[in-house]
Amino acid sequence: MRTYLRTVNYYETDKMGVVHHSNYIRYFEEARTAFMEQAGYPYERLEREGIMSPVIAVSCDYKKPVRYRETVAIDVHLVKMTKFRCAFRYEVRDAGSGELRATGTSQHCYLDGQGGIVNMEKTNPAFLETFRAECEEEP
Amino acid sequence: MRTYLRTVNYYETDKMGVVHHSNYIRYFEEARTAFMEQAGYPYERLEREGIMSPVIAVSCDYKKPVRYRETVAIDVHLVKMTKFRCAFRYEVRDAGSGELRATGTSQHCYLDGQGGIVNMEKTNPAFLETFRAECEEEP
Amino acid sequence: MRTYLRTVNYYETDKMGVVHHSNYIRYFEEARTAFMEQAGYPYERLEREGIMSPVIAVSCDYKKPVRYRETVAIDVHLVKMTKFRCAFRYEVRDAGSGELRATGTSQHCYLDGQGGIVNMEKTNPAFLETFRAECEEEP
Amino acid sequence: MRTYLRTVNYYETDKMGVVHHSNYIRYFEEARTAFMEQAGYPYERLEREGIMSPVIAVSCDYKKPVRYRETVAIDVHLVKMTKFRCAFRYEVRDAGSGELRATGTSQHCYLDGQGGIVNMEKTNPAFLETFRAECEEEP
Repeated sequence: MRTYLRTVNYYETDKMGVVHHSNYIRYFEEARTAFMEQAGYPYERLEREGIMSPVIAVSCDYKKPVRYRETVAIDVHLVKMTKFRCAFRYEVRDAGSGELRATGTSQHCYLDGQGGIVNMEKTNPAFLETFRAECEEEP
Repeated sequence: MRTYLRTVNYYETDKMGVVHHSNYIRYFEEARTAFMEQAGYPYERLEREGIMSPVIAVSCDYKKPVRYRETVAIDVHLVKMTKFRCAFRYEVRDAGSGELRATGTSQHCYLDGQGGIVNMEKTNPAFLETFRAECEEEP
Repeated sequence: MRTYLRTVNYYETDKMGVVHHSNYIRYFEEARTAFMEQAGYPYERLEREGIMSPVIAVSCDYKKPVRYRETVAIDVHLVKMTKFRCAFRYEVRDAGSGELRATGTSQHCYLDGQGGIVNMEKTNPAFLETFRAECEEEP
Repeated sequence: MRTYLRTVNYYETDKMGVVHHSNYIRYFEEARTAFMEQAGYPYERLEREGIMSPVIAVSCDYKKPVRYRETVAIDVHLVKMTKFRCAFRYEVRDAGSGELRATGTSQHCYLDGQGGIVNMEKTNPAFLETFRAECEEEP
């Protein structure tokens, strides 16, 4: 598990006065990117190696709103890492109080430049090795 | 079920050359807004009546990417409508071929101006009546 | 001059209760895209022909806010069309009353796939011809 | 002058493979927010005091594209600070090489809760004092 801190921008709020719900999906992406970077295998390395890792599913449960200039701590858990897929779980908390704001999930596959499915065991074993060490549940 | 047509904007694509996954959540909101308007009870009427209806959960499953200037037809199904909550289901298809691109869900509650939970049977019976007539599954 | 109609989405508002100022730049892009399509030379044709037309300058003056579900009529004027550059001017009005909400400008150049400057007189004369007929000021 | 560092997110890129031009306007807002916070008078304090400071004009000139995961250093210059208005100038550079990527401007006024123009000399003299000390040009 790794934690990502994020402070809310004005343009991310809506007329309800809180962060628009679609932006949590973007926060998850940022948090996942930071996770990969901290684990030593940034997403841009994957892209340089010719692999894309699109999102194939995403979900978010909203518990309490987040407001302008509040800082959230997003705990990112890598919960699945196989040669064909991976999955993350997210917990968004108020950075000060630790109170839960939202939880979420995302799933990803691996594609080559032609959009074909990639077996990471064959093409990027270092990727699998790096992230299996981070994974909290069995593949 | 009601259908919403949407053509992809340039600013909604990402460097993969397709619509960024977070934007589907925004398309769902647009489609839901059109649904309510067509059903005769637009969301802005609810707001004028002092009710907010925040998203409490959202999900999306991505099947095939959507590209710049493609038009999708989003089928919006109201699948739950109770005095405390409602839920929608979405199917995103290529408007030309009908091929499935994504599916999704959203859940909503009702709040008053102070953030308190609202019982729509007491405060907005016309809202319940309008949308129960649209609902495809039993409350 | 061609006019583009646009209704404001919830996710485009901010906690001031109005459309966030950055979204006007996106509305201009949508209006420009519709302009090109209506003129008979859609932007995606340009891209298929291997030309990109990035924005090199943009500006917006905000007169009055625009709110959720309001519809604006954006008048798009092509005010410059040369072999190396083009420029647009925008007027955003309330679609009902005609009252001015904002004005703006954008400038664009033409690049090939390697990022090199393109002389459209040599590579895409049909493009120049189409849009010179739309241009309101002398090149 | 104060400098704000910002790393590009995936969702901020477009199908040209670079940061979409509208996002620079959002980066300016972030940079301005950081400027105010560092100067000791954060924007949220202004809001708590019942003042809004909407953008009345914005511009951006794009020199060179910025790509995914690149970090830019945005120099924020407060160039005008009067009782009715203020103006900022921005220089966006590659954080590593210092190479210029874009320049921009924004202008702002002050409004009360009813949308009336506010004379900051009367209502918020501490605001004027704080930012006049930051201002690089004569009011």
